[in-house]
Parts: sequence; structure tokens; C-alpha cells
Amino acid sequence: MPSPTLGRMNEQAVVSRLAEAARGASRVVALTPRGRKDKALLSMADALVAATDEIVAANAEDVERGRAEGLRANLLDRLTLDADRVAAAADGLRQVAGLADPVGEVVRGSTTPTGLQVRQVRVPMGVVGMIYEARPNVTVDAAGLALKSGNAVILRGGSAAERTNAVLVQVMRDALEAEGLPADAVQLLEGDREVVKALMRARGEVDLLIPRGGAGLIQTVVTESTVPTIETGVGNCHVYVDAAADLEMAEAIVVNAKTHRTSVCNAAETLLVHRSVAAAALPRLLTALAARGVTIHGDPEIESVAQAADATFEPAIEDDWADEYLSLDLAVRVVADLDGALDHIRRYSSGHTDAIVTGDRAAARRFVDEVDAAAVMVNASTRFTDGGELGFGAEIGISTQKLHARGPMALQELTSTKWVIEGDGQVRD
Amino acid sequence: MPSPTLGRMNEQAVVSRLAEAARGASRVVALTPRGRKDKALLSMADALVAATDEIVAANAEDVERGRAEGLRANLLDRLTLDADRVAAAADGLRQVAGLADPVGEVVRGSTTPTGLQVRQVRVPMGVVGMIYEARPNVTVDAAGLALKSGNAVILRGGSAAERTNAVLVQVMRDALEAEGLPADAVQLLEGDREVVKALMRARGEVDLLIPRGGAGLIQTVVTESTVPTIETGVGNCHVYVDAAADLEMAEAIVVNAKTHRTSVCNAAETLLVHRSVAAAALPRLLTALAARGVTIHGDPEIESVAQAADATFEPAIEDDWADEYLSLDLAVRVVADLDGALDHIRRYSSGHTDAIVTGDRAAARRFVDEVDAAAVMVNASTRFTDGGELGFGAEIGISTQKLHARGPMALQELTSTKWVIEGDGQVRD
Repeated sequence: MPSPTLGRMNEQAVVSRLAEAARGASRVVALTPRGRKDKALLSMADALVAATDEIVAANAEDVERGRAEGLRANLLDRLTLDADRVAAAADGLRQVAGLADPVGEVVRGSTTPTGLQVRQVRVPMGVVGMIYEARPNVTVDAAGLALKSGNAVILRGGSAAERTNAVLVQVMRDALEAEGLPADAVQLLEGDREVVKALMRARGEVDLLIPRGGAGLIQTVVTESTVPTIETGVGNCHVYVDAAADLEMAEAIVVNAKTHRTSVCNAAETLLVHRSVAAAALPRLLTALAARGVTIHGDPEIESVAQAADATFEPAIEDDWADEYLSLDLAVRVVADLDGALDHIRRYSSGHTDAIVTGDRAAARRFVDEVDAAAVMVNASTRFTDGGELGFGAEIGISTQKLHARGPMALQELTSTKWVIEGDGQVRD
Repeated sequence: MPSPTLGRMNEQAVVSRLAEAARGASRVVALTPRGRKDKALLSMADALVAATDEIVAANAEDVERGRAEGLRANLLDRLTLDADRVAAAADGLRQVAGLADPVGEVVRGSTTPTGLQVRQVRVPMGVVGMIYEARPNVTVDAAGLALKSGNAVILRGGSAAERTNAVLVQVMRDALEAEGLPADAVQLLEGDREVVKALMRARGEVDLLIPRGGAGLIQTVVTESTVPTIETGVGNCHVYVDAAADLEMAEAIVVNAKTHRTSVCNAAETLLVHRSVAAAALPRLLTALAARGVTIHGDPEIESVAQAADATFEPAIEDDWADEYLSLDLAVRVVADLDGALDHIRRYSSGHTDAIVTGDRAAARRFVDEVDAAAVMVNASTRFTDGGELGFGAEIGISTQKLHARGPMALQELTSTKWVIEGDGQVRD
């Protein structure tokens, strides 16, 4: 029986072997011009569509196992791939092919007084690791974005999607190879949790690790990893209805932010209402929310309004202000004024997306300046914090940290930069 | 006697109290317009000059204690402040006042098809921690750069500079307060190593931690910290003299890169020479280096050339290629060609700065494209990887990681961004 230390060494060796192959491949894709990368992306898309039957069959096995193991219905849905979803994933690759190449972009530059020509150029990260959960379409998105940005990627999907991911990755690797690019630019990391821990310890071998999934996964990765990480996705988002809000607009935004999709990080979890408009706004807002099945968690003063609106009401406890429900639940509080709203958001926001509904320029400006979040909305739904909606064309996650990337991450966020300094013999004196 | 757990809790509480005060101050300085920040920087500079006697006296105590404790001469020199060095530190603050404000800069923006006005705006990080070693001028530089970029800073200097740093920080805090800005925007973290560990665990309270100093310090911080960090400073820098090099230029660059200042991260540590010019280049290069007291660590084939050049010669072992000497030592190797140089650099470079000397466009382009480093030089000394030399006006360290910042870090690197999205009622469908 191997000792735990030996086991750990073996897992580290597995990751090192993968990372070394990825490093070699990354050197090739880093220097591959856009035309060839785009051609490979289109080939990968075609290959996925051609392999639909094989992918759907592998996925059916995963789904069946998931069902037998009691996976929740919403996770089973996220796990499932049918022909349409395979086609959609392939279309995602085609869209990425259409995006500008971030590699080689000159970010800034100048000529120094001694004649050095200095430019900061965007370059690939190198080897990017992704740790994610059920959705197998992330496998395709991440591979496409990594390739376009000149990186090699090590994919660690959820065990629930094991067979699906294996087929997806094999199809994409074969397509890369057929295009004369190294298959090892896209690799799957298989094995148990220990191998994931080894990936988190692969500092120097992996340049960036992106966790994408539930709060537990993200917390584990950002606290245990020695590889630089980007924290993604936890969103305790607020909508604040200001004194000067248009109430029709407020209703549309609150309903959209809460109910358009509940399981996503940019859904609203708390509604704050300025006291001066509470009497006019709350009955209307809570009625609209109740009609869509939203349970209200509120301070006692809200209970009677909620009852009149036919809303299910629960007295709010401290956790309600901090939690990301990801469900048809909404915490609701009346605040004294804009300062009250800012105080509440400062205390409880996860720094993802917070929105104000107001017609008052000064209130909007203070909200934008003082709320410390990846995205601040004025008179728009929190749901717009999304790479696709902002025109990035694709998204690899939404960063809620301040280092390197904040908000939706796409091609540019998968790059670093390099200073190129050209002289004709300059030395320092 | 307190239990270790209690002690640890107390240290965490000390850091939390500091960080909370810093957070409050950061909210004020984040919204302080440039004019007031610049005025405060100038006041801090004047206050430091006015307090010269007090600073020099406190520093003399540190230096005396350092000498008694057997601190090495070069560290004693770094530790020492006289009136000129205080004036230079104050001048640094005045220069920072003259730099453009990074806060509020619009990085990119667009209007979406549905009429959302989207802009990505540069905002302060919030609370920045600095852990550094002997040089007390870093205390002043870091405080100035943090204030200008709208951040609060928690400074943890080396214990050798304890009394000096206490006076410097007190003088700057008083100046801030006199200008109506919160003194807690600049704070000193005192106490033993446990308190530094507590700072590294203050995730969520501190937004960014920058270690600046020796390899040991940096390694400890980047591997143990749960706060996002930026790895700085280790430089195993290479100069490659290509077949098509102008040998006069090569001599000037190699001598400057190695001997201009040996204790800095952008000094050259390895010289690689293309075999086809080795016979012409090496005698000349080694003679010039020997004249400046440089010891050559080389492959056996170099020994006779080194002896002819009157250079001290040591046979190179594996460590010589990987080490950052920070002294008058240079590893020297003849490589078969450009590929040989690229292979060597790929294997041993710390990714700080690598230089090629060549008149050949194709060789320069390949070197620039294929060397994976923060800075790549063509026909210029490695010593130019420096915020001041590149026109940043100041520098808080040189990042050798790829996430967030790479190369010299100044005001921009102390900022994050925020997406501001303004609509007129848009919701997603």
C-alpha cells in the first residue's frame, strides 16, 4: 500500500507531466498567428457537430449515473447535452473565431529621452488551469477562449460530467492535431480530489488557475492554491430603489434582476427601498414579485405590505442580508436614504453587481463612485454583468476580486503583457 | 501565559483593527480629487524635510543597533538615512505629485445595441499591504504612491529600520491630518513575525499584498498568503551576444548590465555568446569584465580565455546558471546558436529581463517573441527595466508574475477597475 506521501508525490507528478506538455504546446500556440487559430476553432466546431451522437451518448451515461446518485434536477439539467446544446457549444467556438486576437496588441508605448523604443505588448498567460463543476459546455468555451488567447489549458471539470468531458476534449484535441497544432494545448485532468490539490500546488508550472462554480469550490481554490488564482462568481447583488426612481422602471428592473434567471451570480438577492417612496413602491414591487413566486425575507415593517401583496413572507435574519439565495427568494429592506443604502451595500455586498434606480443625477453619481463592486448599474438590471451582454463575445467567468481582472473575463483577461525595449546600444549611467 | 491560539487571535485582531481603519481611510482617499492629493503629497515632502534631524537621529539608533547586531555593510548602507537621502525621499513625493492621477481613467467603453452606456473605469485597489526589508526610503515611496493612487497602505518594514520607519510614518500621518485627509491612510504594522503572518491571512480585509525584498521573503509571502499578492524582484537576467552583434556595443551593454549596480534585480547574471563570434567576443568581453573585478563562472572551454583575460575563473556548476548572484560574479556560456540561447534562457531565466545584442532583424524578432519575461531588451542594458527609466516617475517594485502586473509597477498597477453601466430602464430578455 503506498504511503500518503508517495501518493501525493504521484499526483504531483501527474500534474507536472500534464503541465510540462501544456507548456510545450503553449509555446507553439502563443506564436500561432490569428488565421491559423481561427481555422482551428472552426475545425473544432465542425468536429464537435460531427461527433454529436458520440457526445450525446457519453453524456447520457453521465446523466444516468447522476440520476442514480441523486443529483438535483437543476444540476441534472446543467449536465445534460442534447444535439442543440452541442450545436450551441460549437457556435460559441465560431463566435470566438470572429473575435479580435488579443495577442500582440500594443497596450502602451513611448520613446524615452535616450531613444529607447518602449512598448507594452499583450502576450498569452502560458498555461491556464480551469476547475469547474457540472456544465460540460464550459469545457468547450474554455478550450476555445484559451486557444484564441494563445494559451494552453488544463481542464478539470466536475466528476459528474466525466465521460462527456473526456469525449469533448478528445474531439477537440483531434481537431487541433488535424490542423497541425499541438493537441496538448487542450488537456483534461482526471483523477480524484488529490490531483486537484496537486494542480493548486503547481506554482511555476501553471500560470493561472480559474475556479468556476459554487462558493465552496471557489473558496477552496483561492485559499489553498499557491498558483495565482482569480476568484469568480459569488454574487450577493443589490437593487436600490431611490427616492427619485421611476417606479415603472424600478418594477421592471427588480423583477428582471430577481426572476429572469435565479441560479446565476448576477441575479439580485436584496432589494433596498428609500423610505420616502416605500409606501408607493413596495406594494407595487412586492405584488409583481409575488406574482412570479418570489418569497420575501424582510424586516418586520414590511410584513403587512407583503401580506397585502399576497407574497410569502419570512422575517429576515442576519444571514438573509449576506446570503446568495440563487432561488426565488429576495431580502427586502427599507433604508432611510441613499447613505442608508450605501451603508447596507458596503456591509453585505459581495462586490459583484449593485444597481440603483433613480432619476437623480447626484444620487447616481454618488452610487457609482461609492459602491465598491465589479459592476455598478444605473437604471439597468444587474443581469447585464455578462461578457456576452457587454460585447466581449464570450466569457470565461466573472471576477469578483480586484487583482488582474474585475467583472466579466474574456480573451483579454487571459493574457499578460511583456515590455519590449529596443535600443541601439543604450546603457545606464 | 497566553495560549498560542489566543496569541494568534490577538495578532489577527491587531491586523483587523489596522485594516478596518485603513478601509475607512481608503474610502476617503479614493474619492479625494487629484488637487488635494497632490497638495498633501507636497506637505508630506515638506514635513519630512522639516523633520530631518528627528529622522536622522532615529535612523542613527537603528544603524547603531544594526552594527551591534552584525548587520552586513551593504545592508547597513541601505538602512542609513542622512539629510541628503531624506531630501531625496521628499523629492520622490514631489515627483509623484507631478504624475497624472490614475483614478477615474476610462480604460475602455462602448454603447451596447440596447443603449447601455458601458465604461471600464480605473479605481483604487482599496487597502494595500507592503512587506519589505531594510531600506526606509521604501516607506516614503510606498506611502506616496498609495496616496496618489487613492489607496490606504499598511506598511511592514524590516525590523532593522523600526525606529526610522516609526518616525517617517508619524511625520507623514501628521501631514495628512493637517491637510484634512485621514492619517489612517498610512499605517505602520509593528510587532513580531506572527503579526506579519496575520497580515498574510487578512483576505477580504487587505486587497493586495506586495512583498519587496530578498527571495526568501517573497517566497514566504507568495506561498503562505491568502491575500492576493504580486511576486516581485527575483532577477536571473541574461545577456545574449548574437552572431550579428556589434562587439563594441556588446561590451558596453554586458559591462553595464553586470557592473553598474550588482545588488539589484535587473543586473545581468549570465552571459551567453554565439559560438561563431565567441573567439572574437569573449577575450574582449572577459577582459573588460575582469578589469571591473568580475569573477567568471564558466564551462571548461572558457577557462583559457578567462585566464588570458586575467579574469578570476570558477568552473560553473548547475547552480551557477540558476542563481541570482547579486554580486560581481557572472556565469558565462558559449551556445551553438540563437536556439541554444533561447533553450538556455527558457530553462534558467526567472522571467525578469533578458537581452539580446544583435544587428540581425530576424534574430531580434525571434528573441522578442520567444523569450517569456517581464522585459525583453534588444541592444540595451538589462538595467533599463525600471519604473523611473521607463518614464513611470516612480516604482513600487518589479513584478515577475504574469497576473495583474508584469515588470515595473507604479501608479496604474496599484489600481483595479470597475464597470459602470448606465441605462434608461434596460432589462434582459
